[in-house]
Amino acid sequence: MTDADTLYRDIEAIRARNPVVVSITNYVVTNTTANALLALGASPIMSHAVEEMAELVAISGALVINLGTVAPEYLAAMDPAWAAADGAGVPVVLDPVGAGASMLRTVTPLALLDSHRPFIIRGNASEIMTLAGDAGSAARGVDSTAKSDAAGSAARALSMKHGCAVVVSGEADLVVEGGAKVRVLGGSPLMPRVTGLGCTATALCAAFAAVNKNPLEAALHASVTMKIAGEMAEAKASGPGTLQLHFYDALYAMSAQDVADHIKLVR
Amino acid sequence: MTDADTLYRDIEAIRARNPVVVSITNYVVTNTTANALLALGASPIMSHAVEEMAELVAISGALVINLGTVAPEYLAAMDPAWAAADGAGVPVVLDPVGAGASMLRTVTPLALLDSHRPFIIRGNASEIMTLAGDAGSAARGVDSTAKSDAAGSAARALSMKHGCAVVVSGEADLVVEGGAKVRVLGGSPLMPRVTGLGCTATALCAAFAAVNKNPLEAALHASVTMKIAGEMAEAKASGPGTLQLHFYDALYAMSAQDVADHIKLVR
Amino acid sequence: MTDADTLYRDIEAIRARNPVVVSITNYVVTNTTANALLALGASPIMSHAVEEMAELVAISGALVINLGTVAPEYLAAMDPAWAAADGAGVPVVLDPVGAGASMLRTVTPLALLDSHRPFIIRGNASEIMTLAGDAGSAARGVDSTAKSDAAGSAARALSMKHGCAVVVSGEADLVVEGGAKVRVLGGSPLMPRVTGLGCTATALCAAFAAVNKNPLEAALHASVTMKIAGEMAEAKASGPGTLQLHFYDALYAMSAQDVADHIKLVR
Repeated sequence: MTDADTLYRDIEAIRARNPVVVSITNYVVTNTTANALLALGASPIMSHAVEEMAELVAISGALVINLGTVAPEYLAAMDPAWAAADGAGVPVVLDPVGAGASMLRTVTPLALLDSHRPFIIRGNASEIMTLAGDAGSAARGVDSTAKSDAAGSAARALSMKHGCAVVVSGEADLVVEGGAKVRVLGGSPLMPRVTGLGCTATALCAAFAAVNKNPLEAALHASVTMKIAGEMAEAKASGPGTLQLHFYDALYAMSAQDVADHIKLVR
Repeated sequence: MTDADTLYRDIEAIRARNPVVVSITNYVVTNTTANALLALGASPIMSHAVEEMAELVAISGALVINLGTVAPEYLAAMDPAWAAADGAGVPVVLDPVGAGASMLRTVTPLALLDSHRPFIIRGNASEIMTLAGDAGSAARGVDSTAKSDAAGSAARALSMKHGCAVVVSGEADLVVEGGAKVRVLGGSPLMPRVTGLGCTATALCAAFAAVNKNPLEAALHASVTMKIAGEMAEAKASGPGTLQLHFYDALYAMSAQDVADHIKLVR
Repeated sequence: MTDADTLYRDIEAIRARNPVVVSITNYVVTNTTANALLALGASPIMSHAVEEMAELVAISGALVINLGTVAPEYLAAMDPAWAAADGAGVPVVLDPVGAGASMLRTVTPLALLDSHRPFIIRGNASEIMTLAGDAGSAARGVDSTAKSDAAGSAARALSMKHGCAVVVSGEADLVVEGGAKVRVLGGSPLMPRVTGLGCTATALCAAFAAVNKNPLEAALHASVTMKIAGEMAEAKASGPGTLQLHFYDALYAMSAQDVADHIKLVR
């Protein structure tokens, strides 16, 4: 399974191949997730124009379906885009932003999951527990009220049902696929104070999915890369504002040595 | 009335309670105002999906109605969201971006004010004068051509008519409620060179409104916090780009001593 | 033709007159292009509300039509806005983002060019070659696969057909009008790793168009300003994240000496 070497090999693959990642994502994070993808080496396209989805997906290495903006003009593009990805064998990463916070944010990802199979689902504990039908989930807006570890059984149930990897982001990330469960430590306490870093984790899942056909490895590599970049950025930051910029710099500059120095996995 | 101690008490309340602030706001500032709210300690949700407005408002401490994007799909959510806020006793902060610059930007906030009562209205001098029906107002795009002090009588008239506090942002801010009028000094001349800092002031009004039921105090606290963070950021910035990031850092790190050192009120 | 003095004179004109630049642009770059315009001294308005386009264009010095977001609600505003600009003598800068990447992104700018005359067209090599009907163009998503120099004949054909200047952005920019062709060197290899710097170049074309009626000079001044700000920013940056902020600072602080030190034109 994943270690510093296999992770760095994927980072090098992204930098060498510059895979196109198509994102239907929310208007809070279009700029920041595009910057994260570019800094890592991928080639982002952000669109929700249903007319061009099949063409864009056909040239892409992965597709992000992020439910942060649930306006009709965004939602209308998601099913056709995912269908195109199904047809082309393009892996899809689903981010159920705010599942549990409103009925619309709960039923929309569930309806998509009825028709399509994700490669990876990434969310916070409340979102993952909501998708799994866990009555104990308690969303509070788009932030989570539960710790990621509490979502372990929900993540496993989701993974089993949909045949995908599941990432539960939190102070420690939990990455689950079937019987496998890995905790990813590290990062920075400043990260929840920057908007859209969860969505950035989703975008990085897609970048790794474009170069690695193993969903558990792709999910783990994204999660670990987030934590490492967060630690590298924190060392240079004086708060959440400066953290965000140093975070991009860290994605761009991350070396094999950086990975080896910062990776923290608990199996 | 407000002094350094009462302001800092509200900052601590925001940091302790993390109030949800729901924003229907323009696509230029979704990311930056969310970051400002997170840095200060609030929990932002940005949405314009009419289907979920009542649910989101029900869990929120305040609602922002920002008219920067006047596309139909944004406008359609505003009246229902405000109605939900009225019903739930959630304070609403109105930002009439560009009032006076186009007919649509002038009539839309006026129509909302016909049906609903704001807790705070925040705008620049041209916008406030336009809302008050002042023939002397002269908007030039979304930037103001008038100095904030010139809008004093317009602000008072608006405050009286709608029973709310009014913030006129400018080189000096003017905060008015009924017969009370306070000038807030400080800040940085770089601030008008960063897009969306007016909208950020509006977002902070909402964060303070979520923890302080007195509209004048909430408005003053937001105005003063903007000026202090601007001064703290300018000390570390080399231009408007770096200012914006240090501004978030300042919101995050602002201490009681920082407040005491920088607060500048003229009654 | 353009040299350091004529460029700096235009920068001073923008700083003195603060021309309004109206942008119908994509949701990835609304914030960043507004910040670039503010840093340089222009006054940005971002909107796609068709109802107000004529009013906004009437008070503007230039109009940006950027095709990065090709959703219907954005496209619907473009033709009326451009018609208003035609009527008012306001120069229009067209950015055909992703032309060649999807049918929609190819036919939309071509349809606009059937009805309207641009002042400047700015794109990468693939986009410019696609617009010129060059079969050798090969878009790969929204990034270019061709070098800017390869687009020289396409740029000339477009310039001749539409009577406008054409900027082909790349490692070296190519600026063409009629028989004139200038290569603009400089900048930073980090620039393609920041999302939206192409769109920023388009926005700066509009700012210079607002103060200079010569399309070749306006286009060249924008191109050179991008390269200079990129070099100034790189000197202070440690990666693409920090580059972006220092880029704004450079636009804000750029002096006559900076221009003289960094300008690199090859005729």
